[in-house]
Amino acid sequence: MSVQQRAARRLKVALVQEQHQGDGAANQARILQHLEAAAAAGCQLVLLQELHQGPYFCQQECAAEFDRAESIPGPTTEGLARAAHQHGLVIVGSLFERRAAGLYHNTAVVLDADGRLAGCYRKMHIPDDPGYYEKYYFTPGDLGFRPVETVVGRLGVLVCWDQWFPEAARLMALAGAELLLYPTAIGWDPADTPQEQAHQREAWITVQRGHAIANGLPLLACNRVGFEAEASAPGGGSQFWGSSFVCGPQGELLAQAPQDAPALLMAEIDLDRSEDVRRSWPFLRDRRIDAYGDLGRRFCDSA
Amino acid sequence: MSVQQRAARRLKVALVQEQHQGDGAANQARILQHLEAAAAAGCQLVLLQELHQGPYFCQQECAAEFDRAESIPGPTTEGLARAAHQHGLVIVGSLFERRAAGLYHNTAVVLDADGRLAGCYRKMHIPDDPGYYEKYYFTPGDLGFRPVETVVGRLGVLVCWDQWFPEAARLMALAGAELLLYPTAIGWDPADTPQEQAHQREAWITVQRGHAIANGLPLLACNRVGFEAEASAPGGGSQFWGSSFVCGPQGELLAQAPQDAPALLMAEIDLDRSEDVRRSWPFLRDRRIDAYGDLGRRFCDSA
Repeated sequence: MSVQQRAARRLKVALVQEQHQGDGAANQARILQHLEAAAAAGCQLVLLQELHQGPYFCQQECAAEFDRAESIPGPTTEGLARAAHQHGLVIVGSLFERRAAGLYHNTAVVLDADGRLAGCYRKMHIPDDPGYYEKYYFTPGDLGFRPVETVVGRLGVLVCWDQWFPEAARLMALAGAELLLYPTAIGWDPADTPQEQAHQREAWITVQRGHAIANGLPLLACNRVGFEAEASAPGGGSQFWGSSFVCGPQGELLAQAPQDAPALLMAEIDLDRSEDVRRSWPFLRDRRIDAYGDLGRRFCDSA
Repeated sequence: MSVQQRAARRLKVALVQEQHQGDGAANQARILQHLEAAAAAGCQLVLLQELHQGPYFCQQECAAEFDRAESIPGPTTEGLARAAHQHGLVIVGSLFERRAAGLYHNTAVVLDADGRLAGCYRKMHIPDDPGYYEKYYFTPGDLGFRPVETVVGRLGVLVCWDQWFPEAARLMALAGAELLLYPTAIGWDPADTPQEQAHQREAWITVQRGHAIANGLPLLACNRVGFEAEASAPGGGSQFWGSSFVCGPQGELLAQAPQDAPALLMAEIDLDRSEDVRRSWPFLRDRRIDAYGDLGRRFCDSA
């Protein structure tokens, strides 16, 4: 690309950090308002939080919760497609996918600015710990780490728990992603100490900024916010910590949302900066692919 | 391990952040003073900066600089071995290794607390950019990513440029490392803007904290400090940014040195915290090793 051609690839993005409103219709109304506002502000790409249509239902294992799952295409993608087309926005959403009876995924969907379903990503890394019983609900993804081509670029969409795995970000980068995007639902156990809570939140931000740096890519992480009680455990629940952010390809923070309130977080990304940063720090040039074989092992003990 | 047994694995560490004193003997004298002080303060493990015996000579390509290289064992390891034995310290040093005529490495050495050479690591990822012409001097390492067993634990020793590669940290973790350690020599081009300098320094800290988080391991990074002029380019040189630090397995900063002055930086690490953190965030459990094959590729285009 010539110097002249490399002058002006700027992208205005928005992240919708919301709290669960008690029912899906109310959530959807809020999201549609945010999409309208984002478009009015000149944004071209909007990232929604994980499972934005409803509560974070994985706080317990309950067979009735599978009723929330829907097909793709289905009501959620159709609603997002209409909004994408109406506003000329690329939208990255997240839903509970029913693929077949007994086969469900945690899936991100990408609607291109013309309303077309540009692609999907099925969450590859599935957590399971108290309050986050996702292995019960979600079959691990089988689409691999493939960016989705859109009018604003090739989107490396990953989901929540993936954000702790450098492998996921790297594979998206190697597959040509120009942005990394993480719909997220992560929060504190209210029983944790304030120090532990601070460590967790800061670790969540830091590890993702690390992916941006290691891959020379901008990164968007959109988390939910607010307290959601755990029906089966009085006093229990998750305090989702918000803190959605956008950083550039050196991990530099471009925008950050509060940890305790909804926000429509907007930022402008200079997509050409990735190439400049990668020229200064050419990590892709120097990877020792001859020596990475053990990355495919569970652990390098004798077994 | 029982709860009782897991009570008290604490490790006191020290990092020697120094500026080049103009000649090797002066550098060595300073290092020996620091080692004595670290031992007197109760430290059990000391990490030195990259190529601590001399200047950072890779600012230009000059055949005479190869005269600095030495064998292992050789003068530097013998000096460190004496100090290790004298003070009962595990010492991680860094030197320019002459393996054979025309075959040189950037090698970290680990002296156990009895003075024995416990192991070596040859820098795997070799940079090359203006002011850091390392590909001219250093053959890429061929020892792989193997921790070194010592009386204070299994040390995952890596070197400088390796710190930008999540693969290196992960492979050390998979091989059983209990700590990640990075002797480093990284600085600013004085021609860069203050904002760019701030981005670089913060990225350097952030990406390494990210490795600590992703692997649930404490991490030590020891950088040199001070300005070293580039003989062949008046006004040019590197302003090494110090900022050596120690963080815990959630990336939480335990100690940090200034960016503009030498320091003997000490910190106490709770080695048992790694297991607690990994139980909360069991990333090793959930790695998708079935889907990581492309990590062994240069790039996932059609070629």
